[in-house]
Amino acid sequence: MKQSVALSHASRLVNHGPTVLITTAHEGRRNVMAAAWSMPVEFTPPRLAVVIDKKTLTREMAVASGRFAVNIPGRALADLTFAVGSVSGREVDKFEHFRIASFEGAMPGLPLIDGCSAWLECRLIREPHSEDAYDTCFCEVTAAWADDRIFVNGRWSFREDNVDLHSLHHLGAGNFACADQVVQARNVAA
Amino acid sequence: MKQSVALSHASRLVNHGPTVLITTAHEGRRNVMAAAWSMPVEFTPPRLAVVIDKKTLTREMAVASGRFAVNIPGRALADLTFAVGSVSGREVDKFEHFRIASFEGAMPGLPLIDGCSAWLECRLIREPHSEDAYDTCFCEVTAAWADDRIFVNGRWSFREDNVDLHSLHHLGAGNFACADQVVQARNVAA
Repeated sequence: MKQSVALSHASRLVNHGPTVLITTAHEGRRNVMAAAWSMPVEFTPPRLAVVIDKKTLTREMAVASGRFAVNIPGRALADLTFAVGSVSGREVDKFEHFRIASFEGAMPGLPLIDGCSAWLECRLIREPHSEDAYDTCFCEVTAAWADDRIFVNGRWSFREDNVDLHSLHHLGAGNFACADQVVQARNVAA
Repeated sequence: MKQSVALSHASRLVNHGPTVLITTAHEGRRNVMAAAWSMPVEFTPPRLAVVIDKKTLTREMAVASGRFAVNIPGRALADLTFAVGSVSGREVDKFEHFRIASFEGAMPGLPLIDGCSAWLECRLIREPHSEDAYDTCFCEVTAAWADDRIFVNGRWSFREDNVDLHSLHHLGAGNFACADQVVQARNVAA
């Protein structure tokens, strides 16, 4: 079940480097693309950097609307994640084409993708130089949610009974590593 | 065994969001810190963005020397990865303190950490605004290597016989998800 995530915990959702789905909406259109390149840059306020190529419709819509959402797909959505990265929203409405179910969070009209493990709504922070030189878009997370079967008490909980929601980490060509086993480091510095 | 990685494949080493170790050297000093926040921003030339807090010795040394290395630790180095993130190089020489073995790549004096799965030498691209506002340091990869037990023909190969080299993805508080099982997406868009 979808639960609110405290903004102070939002960076934890992407701290481990998952491949994400970026959704946008503007003037009655909507779109979704896959992005392997994103990271937190600040805990409080929670801010991210996401690489969104300047040639994409997503970039155009993110800049025009000033907002986008970061959806974190799990293993069950591997095919979809690869597929939406393989066609352009300029050619088809990917939501219709791939029959993607979505719902709204706090930003009216911005689709969040059903079946993901977590969702972050973001406000684009305009940084023309980084956007132009590195396709790097900075944003501030304004609201976040996670499925409480996999994100429990402010922490990811990767277990055998929720493998479908384990995050995907794109290796290339549709191969994803899955965040599965968890290792607890001993604090040898203490 | 350490093998050279073609620069055109360098982004693949960090495409899946591993936690990395950043090594620096300047005027006879050396340092290492853990960084969970890094990503590629361009394939060719291979460029990365890495968040390096402005208060860290690593940041000071990276700016002063104009270079640093990105080391990708595997599961066997989980304790070390957590440990070097828990103390400051201003207080101790972490290489001595934790008995870290290292070797040189192409940049004289810059330590690469023994036992890692891959290594990328980088030249800092000065971007004062991104560095100041987001602690985001852009760099260009000038050389890369990987252990050929885990990176084969330009691809990560996570198998049961090389689990010690599987990349770490920090969840917080010393908990790391490991990139283990690999899922091959079907191209439903085709």
